[in-house]
Amino acid sequence: MTTATHDAIPTARYAERIGKGLTATADHGLDALLVGVGPDLDYLTGYRAMPLERLTMLILTPGDHGIRLVVPRLEEPAARVGVRPDVEIVTWEETDDPHHLVADLVRVASSSGPATDRPLEVAVSDRLIAMHLLPLQDRLAGARFGSASAVLRELRIRKDADEIELLRLAGAAADRVVAQIAAGRLVGRTEADVAEEVRTRLRAEGHELAQFAIVASGPNSASPHHEALDRVIQAGEPIVLDIGGTLGGYASDTTRTLWVTGGDDRNGPDEAFRHLFGVLHTAHQVATAAVRPGVPAEEIDRAARAVIDGEGYGEQFFHRTGHGIGLEGHEEPYLVAGNREPLEAGMAFSIEPGIYLAGRYGARIEDIVVCGPDGPIVLNNEPRELRVVAG
Amino acid sequence: MTTATHDAIPTARYAERIGKGLTATADHGLDALLVGVGPDLDYLTGYRAMPLERLTMLILTPGDHGIRLVVPRLEEPAARVGVRPDVEIVTWEETDDPHHLVADLVRVASSSGPATDRPLEVAVSDRLIAMHLLPLQDRLAGARFGSASAVLRELRIRKDADEIELLRLAGAAADRVVAQIAAGRLVGRTEADVAEEVRTRLRAEGHELAQFAIVASGPNSASPHHEALDRVIQAGEPIVLDIGGTLGGYASDTTRTLWVTGGDDRNGPDEAFRHLFGVLHTAHQVATAAVRPGVPAEEIDRAARAVIDGEGYGEQFFHRTGHGIGLEGHEEPYLVAGNREPLEAGMAFSIEPGIYLAGRYGARIEDIVVCGPDGPIVLNNEPRELRVVAG
Repeated sequence: MTTATHDAIPTARYAERIGKGLTATADHGLDALLVGVGPDLDYLTGYRAMPLERLTMLILTPGDHGIRLVVPRLEEPAARVGVRPDVEIVTWEETDDPHHLVADLVRVASSSGPATDRPLEVAVSDRLIAMHLLPLQDRLAGARFGSASAVLRELRIRKDADEIELLRLAGAAADRVVAQIAAGRLVGRTEADVAEEVRTRLRAEGHELAQFAIVASGPNSASPHHEALDRVIQAGEPIVLDIGGTLGGYASDTTRTLWVTGGDDRNGPDEAFRHLFGVLHTAHQVATAAVRPGVPAEEIDRAARAVIDGEGYGEQFFHRTGHGIGLEGHEEPYLVAGNREPLEAGMAFSIEPGIYLAGRYGARIEDIVVCGPDGPIVLNNEPRELRVVAG
Repeated sequence: MTTATHDAIPTARYAERIGKGLTATADHGLDALLVGVGPDLDYLTGYRAMPLERLTMLILTPGDHGIRLVVPRLEEPAARVGVRPDVEIVTWEETDDPHHLVADLVRVASSSGPATDRPLEVAVSDRLIAMHLLPLQDRLAGARFGSASAVLRELRIRKDADEIELLRLAGAAADRVVAQIAAGRLVGRTEADVAEEVRTRLRAEGHELAQFAIVASGPNSASPHHEALDRVIQAGEPIVLDIGGTLGGYASDTTRTLWVTGGDDRNGPDEAFRHLFGVLHTAHQVATAAVRPGVPAEEIDRAARAVIDGEGYGEQFFHRTGHGIGLEGHEEPYLVAGNREPLEAGMAFSIEPGIYLAGRYGARIEDIVVCGPDGPIVLNNEPRELRVVAG
């Protein structure tokens, strides 16, 4: 499963990332950066350990220029295969206390510098679980714990060309699945059955994980994060299809709205839905067109919202316009009111306005977009218009 | 995906669990139990929210008998479908601070009781991520944070009849996949290719998640958590097959060791491997036979280790003998030296000794076992003997 990323990202890139991580840790005045299993570890080392309960942790300590990976002994051979850059591997045995081990490594590394009375400053990765964070706080009593994202977001938020290529491949694969589903039979099947087909097709198109398949039909389309149910899809209703997973470690996430007629034109979309969808489509276009370096993230949200508010659907668009994407399905930057951070070339995010009329129906359009040097680079290219299909 | 559990566990059971959770929270002297997305939330409410970044959190506050679920507004409809027992749903908007909201709910609920000067006592679920735990610690400055497992393990550690039935179904499905793989072609294929077949077959046998497929051939079989690679399987070597996922929300996890001959009897296992495997098989049998209520968890580990140590392989068995299993693939109780907790009827765990000769080969046998009132109830029933197959 790790092969695609391992092929796509050269080993030297990991060494560069981890070097930058160590420098940034020092620049932030931290004694240690503690990175558990998850996307930050993958970004820095290429190692995708299973998220099990035994502690695996990358420790960057500027005090002694330390780059160490703590792993359970039984996972040492797997770590030696999975970790790309040169790191010192420190193992612990089943009856050891790994949190104590990490605390000792942090203390020793910090004492390499000039002695001070200030508390230790430690940052932990966002996905570190309480099962590890609470014992670390206990073993490093008196230390101050913050989020490693203050350090790592600067590295991860702008995607390089290899990462953008992986996002493009993931997006193209998801696009093909959307086209396949739109061309197939839908009426008379359950949402859950179609969702299972989506997952199978995502894998067939190269995804190693098919994490979500929202198939929201009829009134369920008014629930943005609807979980596919046993509801049978009827002729004469919309289906919001929001699908994604990972390919080569990078996430896909796209949404299209279909209207199924069952082959009878009398079951086409009503005027109210056509109007709603037209407003949504315009909002999506306007938001996408607003993407360029220097524009605050919240402006993209504002652009979509202005169109939707102007047509009186403001209350029915109750989520942000988008989220960053990369090794995680949702990551920074978030396109949401209050986020004044300016977009920069290489940032990748979804643009996904939606309009939801509770109890009746809803619609959403979502593309993954990269902020290019001169404007948006759109990674999903299936038609965005309302697709009226026989289903 | 939630259907199987939702069918198998009656709604009244969730109401009972959440009631016990509230009582146990009070009994532990806690002001609040905070449960994020993950197995604890699933156990208490049946709700399997996606592990995304927006905060979803069940809050149990004995001070006002509060049972509240905080969810992002856009997930409210999904939560109303997914949550089984009666809970008060509190929503937050995209521009709200959900950690502030939780902190306020905890403070108000705690002030319902008699006023005291003691710090608030709060426990959080083991799988809560730092992205949420650190802000909660900030918003509830002065509160003491501990692990919710002190409360929830008492509820979760003994499986009821419905849970054991789900574990049995998951185990039987994994057994069928082992049999199918053992009967198929192996020599000349890559480990990664066989691992992909395992995942496909687990899903075909009813698993909603096929989380891992260790296919460790030849020298790779000496790495307990080996990730399947592009190595081509050869005639005349062992393959450790350790596979699992979830079915109806409950985990499967089984290991069998094959020896592939490529159809030529001259490629059979050497004497050293036969001896190693014989010792391992005996250790597995002895450990399984030792299971009964009242026996300390570490005794099962000791029983397996005594056999393996006695034959001089002690250094080559460097992991614990087993882990609990249920909604999580690894959970309490752990069968490891130092865990003196007595087994009780209804506890479910793996028994999985292994012997690993670095650079050469290794073997492991793993079953899921429930502690019955009079002894072990074994949920995996594929033959445990060394399987010499053409492959």
